[in-house]
Amino acid sequence: INFVLYSVRPHCSLVSLVVTGLARCAWHSLPSVRAVSLTAPLGQGVPQSLWKLGRLNHVAIAVPDLEKATALYRDVLGAQVSATVPLPEHGVYTVFVELGNTKLELLHPLGEKSPIAGFLQKNKSGGMHHICIEVDDINAAIVDLKEKKIRLLSPEPRIGAHGKPVMFLHPKDCDGVLVEIEQA
Amino acid sequence: INFVLYSVRPHCSLVSLVVTGLARCAWHSLPSVRAVSLTAPLGQGVPQSLWKLGRLNHVAIAVPDLEKATALYRDVLGAQVSATVPLPEHGVYTVFVELGNTKLELLHPLGEKSPIAGFLQKNKSGGMHHICIEVDDINAAIVDLKEKKIRLLSPEPRIGAHGKPVMFLHPKDCDGVLVEIEQA
Repeated sequence: INFVLYSVRPHCSLVSLVVTGLARCAWHSLPSVRAVSLTAPLGQGVPQSLWKLGRLNHVAIAVPDLEKATALYRDVLGAQVSATVPLPEHGVYTVFVELGNTKLELLHPLGEKSPIAGFLQKNKSGGMHHICIEVDDINAAIVDLKEKKIRLLSPEPRIGAHGKPVMFLHPKDCDGVLVEIEQA
Repeated sequence: INFVLYSVRPHCSLVSLVVTGLARCAWHSLPSVRAVSLTAPLGQGVPQSLWKLGRLNHVAIAVPDLEKATALYRDVLGAQVSATVPLPEHGVYTVFVELGNTKLELLHPLGEKSPIAGFLQKNKSGGMHHICIEVDDINAAIVDLKEKKIRLLSPEPRIGAHGKPVMFLHPKDCDGVLVEIEQA
């Protein structure tokens, strides 16, 4: 169950919005919502973006032994797993574990500057590294999240493991969880 | 995409099984597979169980501030969230975050003996606590996992937060990840 997030600046109290599950109108295409707020400065009182959180794309698990981890999910738990996929531009080897509604991504360092090397130093046995949630408009989401003081880990979205733009949100702003958003 | 796990003891090399995605016959109902293996001791050479791994039921996130975490998912990320559900028998307050295909469960300690208190001591900002994957036959799964030397955190399944039998697998046997299986 997903619903539309209407992003309105918190101080914009003059514009009162009643949003229902059916009211999926495109606020960003309305020409003159600004005019409703007579006293708001220019650029304020305007719905900033319209974006929607989607499904959980994957849970990423960093593992010290990729073959052993693959065997666990394939041979012990009986999941369907992919071949090992090297992603040198991301500094990881990946194995995708299909769970029907979503997937796990087993990550293992590739190269000397792997972004998960530090994590595995701290978590010798491995562990959950991040969750990835889809969004329908990553650029709108980024504008909105910045506005809401969520720190982002790169200035611009990057192309992720699935060939789509992704952005990581700072774990300190997300209850200790590294959250990736990915363009659906 | 799920498929049937045919659990056969590893040393049972006399029984050669060719399993395809379509061969979903019920091995446990075959009366005399044992007879195929003339030299195997009694109780060996028999498919032990037939169970199937299912969908990811949830990702559990332990949080030090439940209101703040709920606000993140509801107000910042725009997800649909439940009211706070106290589960005294599990020692947690829970908020369910709907992501369409699965959900996140925000956990916060309830009472003095909360099972997540230690986790939050080590992870002050919070963090991913466990993943829960559904199985179609938890008793068969437990027999099979014990057979495969996966340590379980309780001798018998317990009734979980959704009123269904659950079992936790030891993180040391699951790449540092606490894995819960839940009867679908």
